[in-house]
Amino acid sequence: MIEIDDPADPRLDDFRDLSTADRRPDRPGGRGLVIAEGVVVVERLLASPYPVRALLGVRRRVEALGDLPAPAYVTSAEVMAEVVGFHLNRGVLAAADRAPRPDLADLAATATRLAVLEGVGDHENLGSLFRNAAALGVDGVVLGPGCSDPLYRRSVRVSMGHVLRVPFTHAPDLAAGLNTLRDNGFAVAALTPRADAVSLADAGLRGRRVAVMLGSEGPGLTDEAIAAADVAVRIPMADGVDSLNVATAGAIAFYAIA
Amino acid sequence: MIEIDDPADPRLDDFRDLSTADRRPDRPGGRGLVIAEGVVVVERLLASPYPVRALLGVRRRVEALGDLPAPAYVTSAEVMAEVVGFHLNRGVLAAADRAPRPDLADLAATATRLAVLEGVGDHENLGSLFRNAAALGVDGVVLGPGCSDPLYRRSVRVSMGHVLRVPFTHAPDLAAGLNTLRDNGFAVAALTPRADAVSLADAGLRGRRVAVMLGSEGPGLTDEAIAAADVAVRIPMADGVDSLNVATAGAIAFYAIA
Repeated sequence: MIEIDDPADPRLDDFRDLSTADRRPDRPGGRGLVIAEGVVVVERLLASPYPVRALLGVRRRVEALGDLPAPAYVTSAEVMAEVVGFHLNRGVLAAADRAPRPDLADLAATATRLAVLEGVGDHENLGSLFRNAAALGVDGVVLGPGCSDPLYRRSVRVSMGHVLRVPFTHAPDLAAGLNTLRDNGFAVAALTPRADAVSLADAGLRGRRVAVMLGSEGPGLTDEAIAAADVAVRIPMADGVDSLNVATAGAIAFYAIA
Repeated sequence: MIEIDDPADPRLDDFRDLSTADRRPDRPGGRGLVIAEGVVVVERLLASPYPVRALLGVRRRVEALGDLPAPAYVTSAEVMAEVVGFHLNRGVLAAADRAPRPDLADLAATATRLAVLEGVGDHENLGSLFRNAAALGVDGVVLGPGCSDPLYRRSVRVSMGHVLRVPFTHAPDLAAGLNTLRDNGFAVAALTPRADAVSLADAGLRGRRVAVMLGSEGPGLTDEAIAAADVAVRIPMADGVDSLNVATAGAIAFYAIA
């Protein structure tokens, strides 16, 4: 633990102006760091494969974390706020480098249940999907085209750190990715509100290796994605209700296939 | 449709300083109005039992609504922003008076599935619960102690207007309220992560008249509430995951009992 009083200290640069730096974490102008906020999420980062670079917090919060693999800078809440650019009420932050993603084939070989996402661009929905996946026994997430970055700070926070625990990888060519899943014995189920889809409970998915494919909240899955699935499934919904939030629909599907 | 250019026009008072007025909509200092934002939610308000007092919007949005039961004030986006106190990108608002709540006994006599909430104080969670209840065929919501106001503007918005469609009532004495439900043939199932609870799928609730009781996200249901239920049920969860969001847990339970 290293006490720092000067908000301009360059050792705190990983945590500087977070709301600005976070806007494009994986772009050339950003720094691509993984930022965890709060004791619970920082603990999940410490237990993750992401190499922790540094921590910043008030003494009480840092002490709650036990042994640490990286320097922990201890300061006041005021200096923290000045460094990160806004008031944080969680009292501790950690920064980590990114880590290589698993290959889709490796993920498919070891997983039993997967979520496949297409066009999920909302960081909160993405974070919630990871939280629900972690809770409901989904072993990994495959990000198809149009998904945002699960390691964006807001997604990390909304997921309660579960984006750091649930393995994910990218499938920029969705149809090819689904074939890799099928080669590994997965049935691919596209979740859609379409009336001609099979009711989730009647699709015979329970107990099988299943990949549940989910689309963005507005337009849902593209026609191409639905056509590339083995079965289109729907959650029975009351008349006059258009849709559920994508993370909620995912939670129901994950529960139904468990 | 009445054109108004002056943001100080007293006919717009229902919509003035919404973020401040909304803070305590049901307190003496507030006005207790129901505010709907955006075409979809305003349409749900128009179809609801709440008596609409007035609408305010840009011409294009107001015209999309068809016949209206109350004066519609048409103005520019700039004047709207000045009246409500912040920029609205939904372009139309409606204000309604509150309406009497149904009696718990009447609600119980006609409903097949109910949600009973204890201590759900977060307006977004409350709104999401109503949205999920509406989508998944829950006929009504019973608000036990410690719940916030579902007609708070943020809850109305997050629910996508479904708080205006799903009947709700209050049960300040939770144990007495549960007895009323039982008198009407309901089984009361308390949702809890406790390990000794019965798995939701094994509780034999499907197809029965069921009231699902949900607690606040942090502490969950009180011991008293769980003891007052007929059965404690849990959603099977992966190790190392504390809980699901209360609205998500509710959605899974509503799906499971449908």
